[in-house]
Amino acid sequence: MIDVCLLGTGGMMPLPNRSLTALYVRNGSRALLIDCGEGTQTAIRSASLRFKAIEAILITHFHADHMSGLPGLLLTLGNEGRTEPLAMYGPVGLERTVNGLRAIVPELPFEIECHEFSDQECAHFTCAGMEADVFPADHGIPCLGYRLQLKRKGKFDPQSARAKGIPVQLWGRLQKGECVDGFTPDDVLGAPRRGLSILYSTDTRPVPGIEEYGQEADLLILEGMFGEHDKQERAEISHHMMMQEAADIAHRVNAKELWLTHFSPATMNPEEFEAELKEIFPNTVIGNDCLSKTLQFED
Amino acid sequence: MIDVCLLGTGGMMPLPNRSLTALYVRNGSRALLIDCGEGTQTAIRSASLRFKAIEAILITHFHADHMSGLPGLLLTLGNEGRTEPLAMYGPVGLERTVNGLRAIVPELPFEIECHEFSDQECAHFTCAGMEADVFPADHGIPCLGYRLQLKRKGKFDPQSARAKGIPVQLWGRLQKGECVDGFTPDDVLGAPRRGLSILYSTDTRPVPGIEEYGQEADLLILEGMFGEHDKQERAEISHHMMMQEAADIAHRVNAKELWLTHFSPATMNPEEFEAELKEIFPNTVIGNDCLSKTLQFED
Repeated sequence: MIDVCLLGTGGMMPLPNRSLTALYVRNGSRALLIDCGEGTQTAIRSASLRFKAIEAILITHFHADHMSGLPGLLLTLGNEGRTEPLAMYGPVGLERTVNGLRAIVPELPFEIECHEFSDQECAHFTCAGMEADVFPADHGIPCLGYRLQLKRKGKFDPQSARAKGIPVQLWGRLQKGECVDGFTPDDVLGAPRRGLSILYSTDTRPVPGIEEYGQEADLLILEGMFGEHDKQERAEISHHMMMQEAADIAHRVNAKELWLTHFSPATMNPEEFEAELKEIFPNTVIGNDCLSKTLQFED
Repeated sequence: MIDVCLLGTGGMMPLPNRSLTALYVRNGSRALLIDCGEGTQTAIRSASLRFKAIEAILITHFHADHMSGLPGLLLTLGNEGRTEPLAMYGPVGLERTVNGLRAIVPELPFEIECHEFSDQECAHFTCAGMEADVFPADHGIPCLGYRLQLKRKGKFDPQSARAKGIPVQLWGRLQKGECVDGFTPDDVLGAPRRGLSILYSTDTRPVPGIEEYGQEADLLILEGMFGEHDKQERAEISHHMMMQEAADIAHRVNAKELWLTHFSPATMNPEEFEAELKEIFPNTVIGNDCLSKTLQFED
């Protein structure tokens, strides 16, 4: 299972009841953040999540509302005595940007390992025990979207194991993924089962990557910068997405659920668009700070 | 008069009910900030203060808990359409530090004018219509304390004006500070009256500058990092101040009032030390986020 918590749902500037953009994703005892706006630390505390579990921070792009919480978070991780390296992923320029922010937190007891991706092509990596795909977004500056997947092995198949003459005492190790005595896990497992998949993309126009990687997603988290129809042109010029466009994508990729986040500070009450959006995609949820969900494997 | 609002009272890391260190000081329609930790923007909104009024930001030192709110604040000032320059004051290295943080807010429609002070000597400047003095603090890294003063002219003295044969029609202009027909404002004004004075110094051991510039202060704002007596050695090693030391200074400089701020995140309830501190200095106030006060001229 995966636990997801939307730490902040604001775009541009923090409001008293709306921190800036960040997402906490937990896979058992391992966790990662996507983006780290101002308010991230406070939300982690409010949601009773653990700082120590954070193995990696994935950054969509280098605007202040997505990274302003980083220097303070790094200070806290250091004050907590962290010595394990912290992995960071983001567009080309990440290391330079992180080093800039470290002007106010120059000494840390752990290393930061920066992994930079071109905003022109897709890439893959593993992170906190999950498979991560990164794809180009469209925000006028280098910007990335992310898909996280938790894979699920096939079901144990004793008939197949017996048919292949595998001694019973090897079954457990093979089932756990080991190769033993010339046998492989595939010899005792059925076809891989449906895993879990989350796609997160904000500060972007609709792009092919969202449609490609968002297919059948368990959870799609997209920006809802504007909801008023007369802001369509403004959304296009500023490379943002309309709430209605996000709902339309969720419908087309057959997602299980859509969370909207990154609301314009002028949108004090995004719930006013909920009914309209549910007409487009019924499982639309208007995000709020600390909105949480546990995604479970099927059956 | 001067309006003062303690925007954040936390040291090291923000807590759900305690933002990081920042102070908003308003002189009529003009304002300045001292320090700008994470949560500054939210507190400004919560306290219904104005972003546009901020003419300057004074920085004590370059630790993340005192500057982590800066890039987000700069973004907001820019988004509000500011074109007037923003003055910044701080230790040597300020411009480099601000430029580092601007990695996530590279484009602004206004200039930032950085004024750097040595941490070895005192200096003076004017800011938002107030007189500012800066003095060295002791925090292990370059760190400054600030005193702000709002001067008050002498009372209009018609007897003196008449005795000097000044025509009545010139009195008003002289009273407003103009020099007219060989007469000066001093010709119609009595001795300068007591103005207002605020001293702010945090993240420091007790230093001579606090005692010198804090004499008879209307408001002394000092850190209350630790209150437990067994943390005296830790305070000395980490170059912080005990609450009791702050109260002792307030007593010795004959301040009117002491506000404590910058509490350790381990100190969940600083009020537990209040009675003890009031024994040392009765007008001790345990600060909290958005604590505000209007300082009025005497009589």
